[in-house]
This record gives sequence, C-alpha cells and structure tokens, in this order.
Amino acid sequence: MANFIDIHTRKGRSEPKHYKTTLFHGEALMLGLNCLESGQKQSVHTHADQDKFYLVVEGRGTFTIGSREQEAGPGTVVWAPQGVEHGVRNDEAVQLVLFMGMAPPPAKKRTGEPG
Amino acid sequence: MANFIDIHTRKGRSEPKHYKTTLFHGEALMLGLNCLESGQKQSVHTHADQDKFYLVVEGRGTFTIGSREQEAGPGTVVWAPQGVEHGVRNDEAVQLVLFMGMAPPPAKKRTGEPG
Repeated sequence: MANFIDIHTRKGRSEPKHYKTTLFHGEALMLGLNCLESGQKQSVHTHADQDKFYLVVEGRGTFTIGSREQEAGPGTVVWAPQGVEHGVRNDEAVQLVLFMGMAPPPAKKRTGEPG
Repeated sequence: MANFIDIHTRKGRSEPKHYKTTLFHGEALMLGLNCLESGQKQSVHTHADQDKFYLVVEGRGTFTIGSREQEAGPGTVVWAPQGVEHGVRNDEAVQLVLFMGMAPPPAKKRTGEPG
C-alpha cells in the first residue's frame, strides 16, 4: 500500500509546459507536484468549485491570487479557494517545486494528469 | 486577504496534548499544522468520509496507516484515505512539525480547532 511518498523522488522536468504529476487521488482530495523551470508559468485560471493550495518546496514562485501578486519561498502555503483566480510563474534561475492539492479532486483522466 | 502563510511562523507547543492550528478552512478543504513534542502522539483514529494527508516539515514521525507502521522525515507525504485508520507519534528528541489537510473539512467549531 503506497501511502508514503518522498516528494523529492517524484520531481521532474517538462518542456515547454511545466511538469505535473499526481501523488494521491482520493474521493475527496487530490495531491500532486508541479515543477516549473525558470521562465515557466501556470496561467491564471479559476476552479469554480474546488479549493486549492500550493506549498513551496524549493525555489521561489510569483503567485497571482485574485488581484494580488506575491512572491513566496520554501515553507509558504498559498491558498486559492473556490472561485478565486490563481496562477504562478517562476522568475528565478532555479526550478520551482510546488506540492499542491485540490478538493474535490478533478475527474480522473485516462491520459495526462490533473493539477 | 491572507492567502499566504509561512508555516514556520505558525508553529507552537502544547502540553499534554499536541499543538494544532488551522491555516485555512474552505468549503471543500481544511489545512493546518500539527506540532508534536518528543513523546507526544496523535492516537490512531479513522475518518469515515474524509481524505487526509500529512507532510513532514521538520523532525521524524512514526506513522500508523491501516495495519502498517512506518517512519517518515521531511519531504514525505503520508496519505490516509477515507476509512483508513491513521495516527502518528514522535519518538525522536526534536519537535515533529506536520503540515496536514483534510477534505471535506471538519465542521467549524466555536472553540478548539479541528485536525
């Protein structure tokens, strides 16, 4: 039973779009990693019915939450509740690693991964 | 709008029961911190309808998930899906700091905090 995952073993890189992977996908919650190389971004978007968080694991991100833009580094939790637009970009030289979660989870896909 | 919280600014200590605090409480997800001093534990329990995770931020925890017991250190995500019993104890000399989340969130309480 895979109930334990070391985040550092699941990091990855992807071009041109940033890397996403799912760690756990339950009935009420999905957890994953987002890894953004320097210059990559997750465009601002909104989930009408899902609460979402990011926790910065490595690097620094420039987050947009609603009308606010703010930088955050390791150990900071960023909260994007239902209906609030959010996005993040990596303006730094090093990779940005984000632990993230979304509730309720997106529908499971056959190909690609949510996040 | 408080959408950014540095975990390290929200750590605490409590005796005899371990410290718990809520970071964010949404419609679909609750996020918090659990801080266990050496020798403290969160007894094994089950949430029938809630998915829950812990992320070890500092220290090492000895987790029980179902019939399995396993240690985990910083950067490891521990997953306790709906209906699976779980608990954690701190057998180490230093404080154990856990970032945790639960979906759907517990009912809001007037006193005390969920988690």
